[in-house]
Amino acid sequence: MVLRLHTGVCSLFGIRYPLFLAGMAGGPSTPELVAAVSEAGGLGTLGAAYMEPDAIGAAIDEIRRRTDAPFAVNLFALRAVDDNARIREVQPVLNTMRDALGLPQAGPEPAATRDLLDAQLAVLLEKKVPVISTAFGLLDEPALREAKAASIRVVAMATTVREAVLAEQAGCDAVVAQGTEAGGHRGTFDVRRHPMGANIGTFALVPQIADSVKLPVLAAGGIMDGRGLVAALALGAQGVQLGTRFLTAAESGAHPAYRQQLLDSTEESTVLTKAFSGRPARGIANGFIRQWDASGIEPLPFPTQNTLTRDVRNEAAKQNNPDYMSLWAGQGTRQLTSGQTAGDIVAEIMNEAKALIGSVSE
Amino acid sequence: MVLRLHTGVCSLFGIRYPLFLAGMAGGPSTPELVAAVSEAGGLGTLGAAYMEPDAIGAAIDEIRRRTDAPFAVNLFALRAVDDNARIREVQPVLNTMRDALGLPQAGPEPAATRDLLDAQLAVLLEKKVPVISTAFGLLDEPALREAKAASIRVVAMATTVREAVLAEQAGCDAVVAQGTEAGGHRGTFDVRRHPMGANIGTFALVPQIADSVKLPVLAAGGIMDGRGLVAALALGAQGVQLGTRFLTAAESGAHPAYRQQLLDSTEESTVLTKAFSGRPARGIANGFIRQWDASGIEPLPFPTQNTLTRDVRNEAAKQNNPDYMSLWAGQGTRQLTSGQTAGDIVAEIMNEAKALIGSVSE
Repeated sequence: MVLRLHTGVCSLFGIRYPLFLAGMAGGPSTPELVAAVSEAGGLGTLGAAYMEPDAIGAAIDEIRRRTDAPFAVNLFALRAVDDNARIREVQPVLNTMRDALGLPQAGPEPAATRDLLDAQLAVLLEKKVPVISTAFGLLDEPALREAKAASIRVVAMATTVREAVLAEQAGCDAVVAQGTEAGGHRGTFDVRRHPMGANIGTFALVPQIADSVKLPVLAAGGIMDGRGLVAALALGAQGVQLGTRFLTAAESGAHPAYRQQLLDSTEESTVLTKAFSGRPARGIANGFIRQWDASGIEPLPFPTQNTLTRDVRNEAAKQNNPDYMSLWAGQGTRQLTSGQTAGDIVAEIMNEAKALIGSVSE
Repeated sequence: MVLRLHTGVCSLFGIRYPLFLAGMAGGPSTPELVAAVSEAGGLGTLGAAYMEPDAIGAAIDEIRRRTDAPFAVNLFALRAVDDNARIREVQPVLNTMRDALGLPQAGPEPAATRDLLDAQLAVLLEKKVPVISTAFGLLDEPALREAKAASIRVVAMATTVREAVLAEQAGCDAVVAQGTEAGGHRGTFDVRRHPMGANIGTFALVPQIADSVKLPVLAAGGIMDGRGLVAALALGAQGVQLGTRFLTAAESGAHPAYRQQLLDSTEESTVLTKAFSGRPARGIANGFIRQWDASGIEPLPFPTQNTLTRDVRNEAAKQNNPDYMSLWAGQGTRQLTSGQTAGDIVAEIMNEAKALIGSVSE
C-alpha cells in the first residue's frame, strides 16, 4: 500500500514512467514533442482530432523515426454533425472579429464539417499505433474490437464516475480522470447533461473514480510537477496525464504568442468557454471570449462553432495576435517553465517525485 | 523532503494531527463536534459566523467542558452592510417559495442585518480562544494585533495566490488554500473581481500558494480521507481542512434531511450558487436553486440575500423539506460514511494515511 512510482500502467503500456502527454489537438503536440516524451520514458500523445488522415499517417511515421518507444494518438470519439440553425445569429459576432483582423466578412452559408473519424481510425489501425486515446466519448464497439485485435491499448477520458464506469464496461484499458483544472476541452461525454462540462476538481474526482472502477486511473488537471505526480498516486491514480506543462517545452508546437500568454498567466487567468468550438473548454480569457460573452449569443454546437471560428483563429495566429487565438491552459500555469526540453521536464518531474516519497517508492 | 504526517502546524497549533475541521456556519459544527475533533487530535472549529456573541460564549464554554485540547472559532471577516436596492425584484421570487411552505408573504420592507463582527471578536478575545479563523477576508490590523497580544493563532482562508499573500503580509499564522471542490461558501475576498468566487481546483491551488508564501498551508476542498491527506502533503500543504466529511458524523448538527441528501449525492450533484446568501457557495442542487435560477433575477449581495432567505430555510428545516434548505456540500460526497463518530473519522483518516506513506513518514 506504500506509494510506488512504478505502477501497473508502466508494464501495461510498456513505458518507464507513469506519465502521459495529454492529447492536445490543434498543433501543440508535434511529432517532435510526442517522440521526446516517449523517448524520455513517458507516453507521448499525438493530438490528432483535427488532423487529416494522411497527415496523421505522416506524423506517426515521423514519431517512429524519432523513437522506438510506445506512443498514443488521441481522437474525439464523436461524429461530426453540423447544426447551422442559428448561423445568422452567430456570424455577425464573428464578423466584428473578422473586421478587427482585416478578414473578409462571412455570410449565412452553412458550415460543412467533414466527419473524419472513420478515416482517422483506419490510419491508426493500419499503422498499429500502440495506444489510442479518446475524448468526448468512447470508440464504438466494432472499433474497440478492431483495436483490441490489433493489440492496440485504448484509453478513454472521463470527467465523472459515470463516464469512467462506461469506459470500463466498454473494455478500455485505462481511464483518464480529467479534473476541472485541466486546460482545453472538457472531456465530458454528454453536454446536454452538463452544458459547461462536468467540472469536478481533480482532488475529488480521482479517488471517487478509483473507488468505482477496476481499471487503472490516470489523473489529469492541474498536475505540473513531481508533487502532483505523488499526490495523484496517493489519491488512487496509477499515473498522470499532463498537457499544459508541455506547452512551453522546446519541442511544443504552441504559437510563440500563445507561449508568452501562458508564461504571463496566473491561476486566475482561465475561464471555461464554448465560444471557440461549441464545447466547453478551459483557456486564458482574451478578447475573443470577452467579445463573444458580451454578445449574449449562445455558440453553435460542436463542431459547427469550431468550423466557423477557424478563419479567425488562423488569421490571429498569422498576425501574432493572442486576443483572437484559443489560449487553452490549465489552472497551474504559475508552475510553467521556459527553455526546457520535454525530456528535461519528464526527468525533473520524476526526480521531484522520487525525492518526495523517498527510497521506499522504488 | 520525505512526506511526514507530523508537520510544523502540529507544534504551531498544539495538536497531534494536521487535520482541521472547516468552520461550517449555520449549525453543523456543534460544540460536541468541535470538541470531538479536537479530542481526537485534530483542530475542531466552531462555525460562529451567524451566531450571537452570547451564544458563541456559551458554545466556547461547552467546548472547553468537553476537551482541554485547542480549537478554533471561525468568523466572516467582513462588515454587514445591507443593499436592499432590488428588494421589490427579489421578494416575489422568495414569496413563491414561502407560498409552497405555507409561510406568510413578505413585502418590500428592507432587510436590516446587524453587524455582529466586533461583538463576536470581543468574545473570542475575552475567552482567549486558541485559534481564530476567517473567511471572506482578513481581520483588520487592530483586531489582528489584539489577537496576537492574547497569544491567539490566526488562520485565513484564501482562494487565490493573491489572497494568500495578503494573509501573509497581514501577519496570519497559517493559510487555508480552499479549492473549488469545497462545500459551502467560497472564501474569495473580492466578489466584484470574481462574482462566482475564484474557483481554482485544490490540485492546482495548493502548490501555487505553497510556492508563493512562507506560511504553512492547509489544503481544503475535496479532501475526504487519508489519501487526500497524503496528497495534500505531497502538493506542499502542511495539513488539511475538512468540512463535508464531518457533516455526517454522529456529533454533527446537520439536519437529518440534509444528511440524507448528502449520502444520496454524487460528484455530479453540487453547483455554485449565490441564491441562498448572495455570496457564491457550493451546495447540492435543489428546488430552491432551480426556482431561483429560473427567475433570472440576480440575488441581492451578501448579507442581505442571506437575511431575506432565512425564514424560508428555517421553515424548510422545520418541515424536513430539503428542497428549500441550503445543502452545502463539497464534490467528494461518494466518500461520505454514516454512523461514525468524529473520533472514528479522524482515526480512520490517520490510519489510511500511515498505511499509504509507510513507516518513513512517522
